[in-house]
Amino acid sequence: MRATTIHGTRDIRVSEVPDPTIEEPTDAVVRVVAGCICGSDLWPYRGDNPVTPGDTIGHECVGIVEEVGPEVRSFRSGDFVVVPFDHCDNTCPHCLAGAQNACTNIGYTSSGQAEYARVTQAEGSLVKTGGVPDADLLPSVLTISDVMPTGWHAAVSAGVREGGTAVVVGDGAVGLCGVLAARVLGAETIVAMSRHEPRQEIARAFGATHVVAERGKEGVAAVLDITGGVGADAVLECVGTNQSIDTAFRIARPGSRVGFVGAPHGVELPVRRMFTHNIGLAGGMAPTRRYMPELLALVLDGTIEPGRVFDATMGLDDVAEGYRAMDERRAIKVLIEP
Amino acid sequence: MRATTIHGTRDIRVSEVPDPTIEEPTDAVVRVVAGCICGSDLWPYRGDNPVTPGDTIGHECVGIVEEVGPEVRSFRSGDFVVVPFDHCDNTCPHCLAGAQNACTNIGYTSSGQAEYARVTQAEGSLVKTGGVPDADLLPSVLTISDVMPTGWHAAVSAGVREGGTAVVVGDGAVGLCGVLAARVLGAETIVAMSRHEPRQEIARAFGATHVVAERGKEGVAAVLDITGGVGADAVLECVGTNQSIDTAFRIARPGSRVGFVGAPHGVELPVRRMFTHNIGLAGGMAPTRRYMPELLALVLDGTIEPGRVFDATMGLDDVAEGYRAMDERRAIKVLIEP
Repeated sequence: MRATTIHGTRDIRVSEVPDPTIEEPTDAVVRVVAGCICGSDLWPYRGDNPVTPGDTIGHECVGIVEEVGPEVRSFRSGDFVVVPFDHCDNTCPHCLAGAQNACTNIGYTSSGQAEYARVTQAEGSLVKTGGVPDADLLPSVLTISDVMPTGWHAAVSAGVREGGTAVVVGDGAVGLCGVLAARVLGAETIVAMSRHEPRQEIARAFGATHVVAERGKEGVAAVLDITGGVGADAVLECVGTNQSIDTAFRIARPGSRVGFVGAPHGVELPVRRMFTHNIGLAGGMAPTRRYMPELLALVLDGTIEPGRVFDATMGLDDVAEGYRAMDERRAIKVLIEP
Repeated sequence: MRATTIHGTRDIRVSEVPDPTIEEPTDAVVRVVAGCICGSDLWPYRGDNPVTPGDTIGHECVGIVEEVGPEVRSFRSGDFVVVPFDHCDNTCPHCLAGAQNACTNIGYTSSGQAEYARVTQAEGSLVKTGGVPDADLLPSVLTISDVMPTGWHAAVSAGVREGGTAVVVGDGAVGLCGVLAARVLGAETIVAMSRHEPRQEIARAFGATHVVAERGKEGVAAVLDITGGVGADAVLECVGTNQSIDTAFRIARPGSRVGFVGAPHGVELPVRRMFTHNIGLAGGMAPTRRYMPELLALVLDGTIEPGRVFDATMGLDDVAEGYRAMDERRAIKVLIEP
């Protein structure tokens, strides 16, 4: 099949690779209808994570079940499904406790930007959409594979509450989904920290009541001003750098929690401040499958339209340009049609 | 007055210092009936925190109100009170949100091992016992000044739940109070990590169902064994060293929280593990005043007897020996009668 492969820093290609097959009785193979590029794909793209040259890349997709292993009973060829980036059996103690990201049979999608993807633990992982989604719904359905549950996880982990104040650090697609999550969860004041006009616009459409364009000290001061000097009831950290973490802990009110979902890179947590101010940290890699049914329902009934984070759609042949566009922040998130 | 003073590493003296006075209209002066030595007093004692030679030391006490400032309306001379180590107005936004440790008018007791202590923000800080407690209740009442609310805060921050499994890292007085808190909050399985027989005994009396004497890798393996390989629902970190923090995050199940109350010294939080396993961290310096009324009631009605953590009582003249006994782990916690 044709698949996106990574060969080194800023070296993305479309290569012919072997079709994925049923390797375990719990596997499924899904024909990808739509995949996309994740902010976390930019870490290896930029050389910040090691790569094995020639490896396929891409972990978000939706598509049609092509084949299932003998232990997959609820899905069959032809079903339109959402594939979570982290696969789980959804029956182990960690899954039952809502930590599907730590399933004892954890697996990950490895060719979401390709013609086919292998899904391990398909029975526990996949969620049917109930037919092929309308074209205008498809981008939003695709976000249920990763970016929307991840933004949602930030909001849940930060303890966003009805009537409270939520601040979202990071205006990538995850941060924007975090704004949307905070709105659905009932936050009254929602501050998006963003200095890019097109992202600010989506943040406002998703429910942001305030936009803070400043960063660092000035950004902290602006948020404290909005919150009457008290700090935010909940902070969603959607970047993962030392600066964003530092900002998050400076704007969180004492006794609150920072919900983090940006894979941490070179981060040292401010343990003294966490201790003296009682600011907690929760979250991490999203337990995607936990939130999928609920979020898919909100998409299908039109309550949320997270697909607005896609501002470019490309064919598989143009995937390298998709990475460039996201790397250079010309695009927020690129949808790939294989 | 006579007060405990610190002059350098392992140099504790009893010195004549000026009596505390009403400096602000919100102050009270309390005649100390009982004070005690805190595990955190051992940090400067051991040279791990800087000291100003001659400074008074000691932040836990109960006693009788001697004098109040004009803005203190609910207390008067003769009232028997518990003094929280962290003073608060109990009316600012942080206090109202339960983060009294970060009160905008925060203050601390600085002469708890002395004849008199000044209490700032007395109106918000002090809690009356309703008369002089019986001698046998006094040690337990004294724990409400710091150690019991701190253990309680670890349990609350870790999210101890009815029927769940709680593991307490650290068998100091705070850790033992954490065991007691976990029991009151309904944990079914309570593991005390302790290798000292007298402490194990108190832990069992306080509600520990299991004692793990091993440390490091072996300790982690023992806890995982008790929890069926899953890890603990809630971990109370009551030490504050890198090793104890590391242990805490290795025994916490994915999706759970570590509640930490041991002032961190040289700690680097395992941010990658926290992220991949979704193990949160919450807690910090206890918002003592928040828990005092509830915990004092539990002491006065005999539900809990946290005063059992005191295994030595000394007069003020012997305070240096009290520090030595705790430093050498000959005593768990020393009560000082000025």
